[in-house]
Amino acid sequence: MIEPFAAVDLIRHKRDGGSLDTEEINWLISRYTSGYVGDEQMAAMAMAIFLNGMTRHEILDLTNAMIASGERLDYSNLGRPTSDKHSTGGVGDKITLPLMPLVASFEVAVPQLSGRGLGHTGGTLDKLESIPGWRAELTNEAMFAQLQELGGVICAAGAELAPADKKLYALRDITGTVEAIPLIASSIMSKKIAEGTGALVLDVKYGSGAFMKDLDRARELARTMVELGTDAGVNVSALLTNMNVPLGLAIGNANEVRESVEVLAGGGPADIVELTCALAREMLALAGQPDVDVEAHLKGGQAMDVWRKTIAAQGGDPDAPLPVPAESLEVRADRDGVLVAQDAYQFGVAAWRLGAGRARKEDPVVHSAGIDLAVKPGDAIKAGDLLWTLHAEDASRFAGALADLEGAWELAEPGTVFTAEPLIAEKITAE
Amino acid sequence: MIEPFAAVDLIRHKRDGGSLDTEEINWLISRYTSGYVGDEQMAAMAMAIFLNGMTRHEILDLTNAMIASGERLDYSNLGRPTSDKHSTGGVGDKITLPLMPLVASFEVAVPQLSGRGLGHTGGTLDKLESIPGWRAELTNEAMFAQLQELGGVICAAGAELAPADKKLYALRDITGTVEAIPLIASSIMSKKIAEGTGALVLDVKYGSGAFMKDLDRARELARTMVELGTDAGVNVSALLTNMNVPLGLAIGNANEVRESVEVLAGGGPADIVELTCALAREMLALAGQPDVDVEAHLKGGQAMDVWRKTIAAQGGDPDAPLPVPAESLEVRADRDGVLVAQDAYQFGVAAWRLGAGRARKEDPVVHSAGIDLAVKPGDAIKAGDLLWTLHAEDASRFAGALADLEGAWELAEPGTVFTAEPLIAEKITAE
Repeated sequence: MIEPFAAVDLIRHKRDGGSLDTEEINWLISRYTSGYVGDEQMAAMAMAIFLNGMTRHEILDLTNAMIASGERLDYSNLGRPTSDKHSTGGVGDKITLPLMPLVASFEVAVPQLSGRGLGHTGGTLDKLESIPGWRAELTNEAMFAQLQELGGVICAAGAELAPADKKLYALRDITGTVEAIPLIASSIMSKKIAEGTGALVLDVKYGSGAFMKDLDRARELARTMVELGTDAGVNVSALLTNMNVPLGLAIGNANEVRESVEVLAGGGPADIVELTCALAREMLALAGQPDVDVEAHLKGGQAMDVWRKTIAAQGGDPDAPLPVPAESLEVRADRDGVLVAQDAYQFGVAAWRLGAGRARKEDPVVHSAGIDLAVKPGDAIKAGDLLWTLHAEDASRFAGALADLEGAWELAEPGTVFTAEPLIAEKITAE
Repeated sequence: MIEPFAAVDLIRHKRDGGSLDTEEINWLISRYTSGYVGDEQMAAMAMAIFLNGMTRHEILDLTNAMIASGERLDYSNLGRPTSDKHSTGGVGDKITLPLMPLVASFEVAVPQLSGRGLGHTGGTLDKLESIPGWRAELTNEAMFAQLQELGGVICAAGAELAPADKKLYALRDITGTVEAIPLIASSIMSKKIAEGTGALVLDVKYGSGAFMKDLDRARELARTMVELGTDAGVNVSALLTNMNVPLGLAIGNANEVRESVEVLAGGGPADIVELTCALAREMLALAGQPDVDVEAHLKGGQAMDVWRKTIAAQGGDPDAPLPVPAESLEVRADRDGVLVAQDAYQFGVAAWRLGAGRARKEDPVVHSAGIDLAVKPGDAIKAGDLLWTLHAEDASRFAGALADLEGAWELAEPGTVFTAEPLIAEKITAE
């Protein structure tokens, strides 16, 4: 077979600021998936894309080529609309856990194909695996059956969804080419479009604990993804949300499940409730149900009912005790004051170092490890008050985590007036 | 062993416009040579270097790290100074063949470790292998012995010289990262410094048939290499020479040897004689012999004497007939005129397509293939005059080569006054 292109020519073209056309991108991605184009060539291309960018058309072509590398799911026989959410990842971000059952309780199906954590941000599947017996891996048939019966599922994305993206993501991770907007946007959207959802809400985070440190870059990423989804026929919108401070009070795995269950029981931290409800309203609106009272389904137990059924359907016992840590260390205030800073990134790294996250893909996570916050920015504090508790299986982990937290928080003079940044900064919709 | 750096951090630093320090570059190159740092990581780094550049200090560190990856030769026991030449490559560039014996005839040793051709530019070893019996591969001991006895050698660079550069060069070739000045300069100079020559003249070509298409880029490359050599204690200078037009009248392998022997016999095309003598004067001046009459050693046979002895020392028969082509095709003028253009790149590609060059490293070259020019720019031509003759082993090659030559040359009206560009544009010396 005579190849119509040579990878080195396409790399040079992108390197020199040119654009690749649809046929070139299709060829590149299909040959990269098959192994004809090598990792070293794709790494050079990824760096050229990182530094020279891609046009809207190129990003769309790249997304479509990655979708075409695998299967595309179809829920048209489900008898109800589908709506999904994707978060770009943050610290303490367990929103998927209460959100899926909340939306599913309104007869909108939620096919939430999720991933695992890497680095300082946790992964939804890691958190749920704190629940004894719960299984992340489902066959497509089991996933469809659960969606049909219970209206919602959170499970691992199958290897057949956008395999080119899986291969490219692993490559980007070791070649310093993760943070490029064309590559992030096409990676996320190829998986979500292949997953087959009819509606999609993107929770694009900005701030210290997010991939995108500043709002402008987050906005650009959100716009790019909304355009990609719209072009692919998905009803899509995005919320730009603040990730300068951890979400909620729990950072870890088992403790994040506990906090999620509190929210499903009608309680829980105000920021988690606010973001869960905002995303649920958005998901339902895109699926044809605007103006529903989502709070009522948290207070009324309808969301909890779906939660318990879906956990049980995947082998988990919703009443089983969650793992508890072998070692805990309380950090207390040495003076009076007002907490005015609590850096999401540093708290995320500390939780990771305690064992809540993994350094390498192969590593297990420690489900009981993490941090429970007792206070949030704006809280008035007395000397001796508990600030947060660190959890680990091994007390030798505490020193490193405490070092990570140095400079991560700030106590201002008592009486200082603190104004929190809004949790939801903007909404981006299709033009 | 705990590694002091992670490759991905160094890539990100360079990607974001930073500079790498000496320890980081030493670590990167030594771990790349050992295989700990993967090809995909080095490819991303090479693209980041291509697009973001390197400081003078980084280029020096990179060069030193590549030298340190292998052995460094030492001619201090030779009893005479050493001087070498490196050309960045062009079309019809056989200058090394007459130059080595010419300089050696002045009792300055010339350790010319050479390479093979790739793409449209020929390689010195490929040309010499046209001579029946001639061997490119010598042990270090045999090379030293020949330098001691005859004063000159042209042979293949051993695998022990700058192995990191060999590995990196092969990677750059397939990842679109060849043409970066920091990478070209460190690649050339690491080999030449490791080779151990005391003096070095660089023939940096610019124009259509050269790597560097314009004079400014060639000047930047030359300055960078002169700085690197000077920092390493080598007496180094560079000539910037024109490669818009093929050098001499022969483009190929056996025909280039024939033309070289004409120059050694006191004849040959004026441009070959001019450049050979200019480079020889420069090499001799840097080795302590300024103002010598190099032309006298071409006319007087001293250079030819060294040529014959060195060819014979490497198994070649200087009197043996050279390979002749099975098929030849004459191209003649269809009208009167003055030749005003003869594009080096297109003539180089045509010769390559006739079989004189290789498409892949593993391919053999056809020694008899190539092009013999009958005219050069400025020549007045009558209808029916021979312009050039194409040579191949297989007549099916001619159509493609003729297509390559379309638009490669131009006949202006008879009587047109043509002024050639100077062959040697500038000289760059250490500051």
